[in-house]
Amino acid sequence: MTTCTNNNIEAIKAQQPDLNNLVPFTGANTTTPYLNDPVAKHTRKLCQTIEEAIKKCELRDGMTISFHHAFREGDKVINKVIETISNMGIKDLTLASSSLLSCNTPLIQHIKNGVVTQIYTSGMRGELADAISHGLMEKPVHIHSHGGRVKLIQSGEINIDVAFLAVSTTDEMGNANGVSGKSQCGSLGYAMVDAQFAKKVVLLTEDFVTYPNNPASIRQDQVDYIVKIDEVGDPTKISVGAARITSNPRELMIARYAADVIEHSGYFKDGFSIQTGSGASSTAATRFLENRMRDKNITASFALGGITASIVDLHEKGLVKRLLDTQSFDGTAGQSLGRNKDHIEVSTNVYANPASKGASVDELDIVILSALEIDLNFNVNVLTGSDGVMRGASGGHCDTATGANLTIIVAPLIRSRIPTLIEKVTTVVTPGESVDVLVTDHGIAVNPNRPEVAERLIAAGLPVMKIEDLYQRAISLTGKPMPIEFEDKIVGIVRYRDGSVIDVVRQVKD
Amino acid sequence: MTTCTNNNIEAIKAQQPDLNNLVPFTGANTTTPYLNDPVAKHTRKLCQTIEEAIKKCELRDGMTISFHHAFREGDKVINKVIETISNMGIKDLTLASSSLLSCNTPLIQHIKNGVVTQIYTSGMRGELADAISHGLMEKPVHIHSHGGRVKLIQSGEINIDVAFLAVSTTDEMGNANGVSGKSQCGSLGYAMVDAQFAKKVVLLTEDFVTYPNNPASIRQDQVDYIVKIDEVGDPTKISVGAARITSNPRELMIARYAADVIEHSGYFKDGFSIQTGSGASSTAATRFLENRMRDKNITASFALGGITASIVDLHEKGLVKRLLDTQSFDGTAGQSLGRNKDHIEVSTNVYANPASKGASVDELDIVILSALEIDLNFNVNVLTGSDGVMRGASGGHCDTATGANLTIIVAPLIRSRIPTLIEKVTTVVTPGESVDVLVTDHGIAVNPNRPEVAERLIAAGLPVMKIEDLYQRAISLTGKPMPIEFEDKIVGIVRYRDGSVIDVVRQVKD
Repeated sequence: MTTCTNNNIEAIKAQQPDLNNLVPFTGANTTTPYLNDPVAKHTRKLCQTIEEAIKKCELRDGMTISFHHAFREGDKVINKVIETISNMGIKDLTLASSSLLSCNTPLIQHIKNGVVTQIYTSGMRGELADAISHGLMEKPVHIHSHGGRVKLIQSGEINIDVAFLAVSTTDEMGNANGVSGKSQCGSLGYAMVDAQFAKKVVLLTEDFVTYPNNPASIRQDQVDYIVKIDEVGDPTKISVGAARITSNPRELMIARYAADVIEHSGYFKDGFSIQTGSGASSTAATRFLENRMRDKNITASFALGGITASIVDLHEKGLVKRLLDTQSFDGTAGQSLGRNKDHIEVSTNVYANPASKGASVDELDIVILSALEIDLNFNVNVLTGSDGVMRGASGGHCDTATGANLTIIVAPLIRSRIPTLIEKVTTVVTPGESVDVLVTDHGIAVNPNRPEVAERLIAAGLPVMKIEDLYQRAISLTGKPMPIEFEDKIVGIVRYRDGSVIDVVRQVKD
Repeated sequence: MTTCTNNNIEAIKAQQPDLNNLVPFTGANTTTPYLNDPVAKHTRKLCQTIEEAIKKCELRDGMTISFHHAFREGDKVINKVIETISNMGIKDLTLASSSLLSCNTPLIQHIKNGVVTQIYTSGMRGELADAISHGLMEKPVHIHSHGGRVKLIQSGEINIDVAFLAVSTTDEMGNANGVSGKSQCGSLGYAMVDAQFAKKVVLLTEDFVTYPNNPASIRQDQVDYIVKIDEVGDPTKISVGAARITSNPRELMIARYAADVIEHSGYFKDGFSIQTGSGASSTAATRFLENRMRDKNITASFALGGITASIVDLHEKGLVKRLLDTQSFDGTAGQSLGRNKDHIEVSTNVYANPASKGASVDELDIVILSALEIDLNFNVNVLTGSDGVMRGASGGHCDTATGANLTIIVAPLIRSRIPTLIEKVTTVVTPGESVDVLVTDHGIAVNPNRPEVAERLIAAGLPVMKIEDLYQRAISLTGKPMPIEFEDKIVGIVRYRDGSVIDVVRQVKD
């Protein structure tokens, strides 16, 4: 049935000698043999166990594996897969999870037994973070921003061999999402990047649906293998910890101040855009914007980033036209993504990668971010606590801070008798040049490089102070904190979004 | 403000010598200088003219440029851009349009003047095809399938330097689609591939909309430059020619037979899937399926491929659950894509690439395809006419034929006194092993390798004949056609979907 003979190939080469790689046709399914088997066509990606998928991916010592953290404290995949890998005797892996949380405590044993020897992550919390801060690992952990992670992947520094991606539903080809089925995490913004760049992609799904699944946050042309497991995550734990909703009066007060700052900043105009981070005051500020938007007849063109129930509420009231969601910060946001046409899922490449052809953070007017520490140069620490132990995450902090036209940091001036505003932050994650306004419960400070913003806020009667005066107030209440004592050993390297090293974290003294 | 000193970098290297590429932080926007300019942030991709975009892309002699053909005969971009390139004096380009049509006649002059010296395309029609068939070009044209094109791009044989992509709307960052604005082409399935793989991507848009545009068929992280032009295409001409709607009684008769074949093939079950090609009978067959589906209480899980108004009608009546649309074959389909949630845009990588991790054609139960010629071995020619001149396109023909469980070819037995069924096709595009049933106005022939299908159709009382008998009927009516006379020179290389050469097209004698 083949009609192209080698004679034809020779004739082509005689006419155009540079066409020397052509081969004759040898059958309809030479490169797609599964199409000859009416069953294998449909089952070729399916694995019965995680172990089977790992074997098919040919995971070996020294390789890099990745995960997304969209379920946050409810994740049920990262620990389970690494335990399986450990049982299989594979060692010396680089773990490139988009982030790690308190639920990842079991990783400590897999670091001790040599399964995981290097980590790239946006952050760490809990016992794992504590152990690493105290010198658990030989190689320092690389802390990256959400946008910076994609740049490190794109550049090949993070070279993902196998991505293990939790989804709530998929079809047999791998069209998958997090907005249908039982355990919904909402946006798969992190996973979309891994699905694009990893050499092998394994989906861990709770459920199979009829082909074609819609929406396909992860697409069939990105997926190698699929394993069904009982539970990929607990969505009720997404908003535990960093993404909680506050009723704390001080946090609400700061949130209200932040809304005042926005209103009078010069950027509160029809069509403005906003991101609110995951911190309690930041999230709460959204709620105080509603009346201000109604009063001035202002709607926002879009809200970006980690999307919360408060933002969804504004969207459904028509006050925010579109939501660009790279991580759904609670169940309400996840459900909205499945329901609202203008609630749009975006990858972290679209969201924040400085090396992509276009990042959404570049379009942002206003961002409200939190801080563990901020210093007199407006440098922000969202990684290490006042004891020097890692307990936070870089997240989209430095990405949005430099992208936005107005970057507002919200923080209580004092936490548990320790000042948040200090002379020099323990760890710089976001450089002060990207920060415009600090809002605390004791007053507001504006970066001297934004005098026009300071003028507007003063004119509006807001309690604007010099940051040095705010600092004096803090230490007058708490005293000057004692310096933290560190060992020489570097336990964390803080990578700025462009890949450069903005700071290092050293081992804390016991 | 920088806190990471070179001392820190040295300390990292001392601890982990393989980390030798780290550099210290040197400023928030070292790699994103446009973020320092509140205007450039928003305008950095915008060009005033096509020429400006070409210059910024640094297009040079010998490079490869690409286009999509979603506007088919209504395209206004391909000729315009190549004319601009010609005026700029750039030569020796490889043109890798997803296809070319009769509207591309002006390319003849740009081949003559050396601007375009090599072509990759799914097909050709009209004067351009005629001229090339008569030896216009030195290098043969590569004819690929829609899926095969993506494989050639993926493998680097088609190495797109600059893609020029027509869209009806975009925002300033390049989030673009074909379902809003004035001249809507519907799906951008071809363009999505170019946007993914091309080194530089230029959007030609009719209109700008507020950021963020939704849907984003082409995303901001894929786009380098944007030019606004008056008109990108005429959507009323999408369904001219190959994609026309028929009222021809013979074509309708064939269409009805095709529906009979489907009904009794063994594949007409609840949840079946189907693609109808762009030919008139193929498209019309859809309409005859409706009552059969209602009578048997059968719905289709999805329809694939070039989507037509007839398919949209079935979808909106609830008879076809989802539409996977890589090319909207008429205005109705384009509008549906913008309106119906389960009308889903898919790239040609998802649609049909045999080298992707999963092609939708693999999931297909039934495809109805047309033919210019078919032979006794069921080989199909959809490229060259009975005079040997190119006047068609490979399209998704061989992709779907091998992917589907049941491949039906619909064709009149005789066209203008020339038999369609002949001993040996002039050009093989789809191998006979992928073809199951031939439906003509004189009877139905089943490939001997599908005896179970033949049995079912005979049992249903359909006019099943041996293909040899159907052939005898054809030549008894027309006489045996004279062989076409060709020169030795090869003018076209027919690439099977896996990249192999399935046939060549030789220059026709004048």
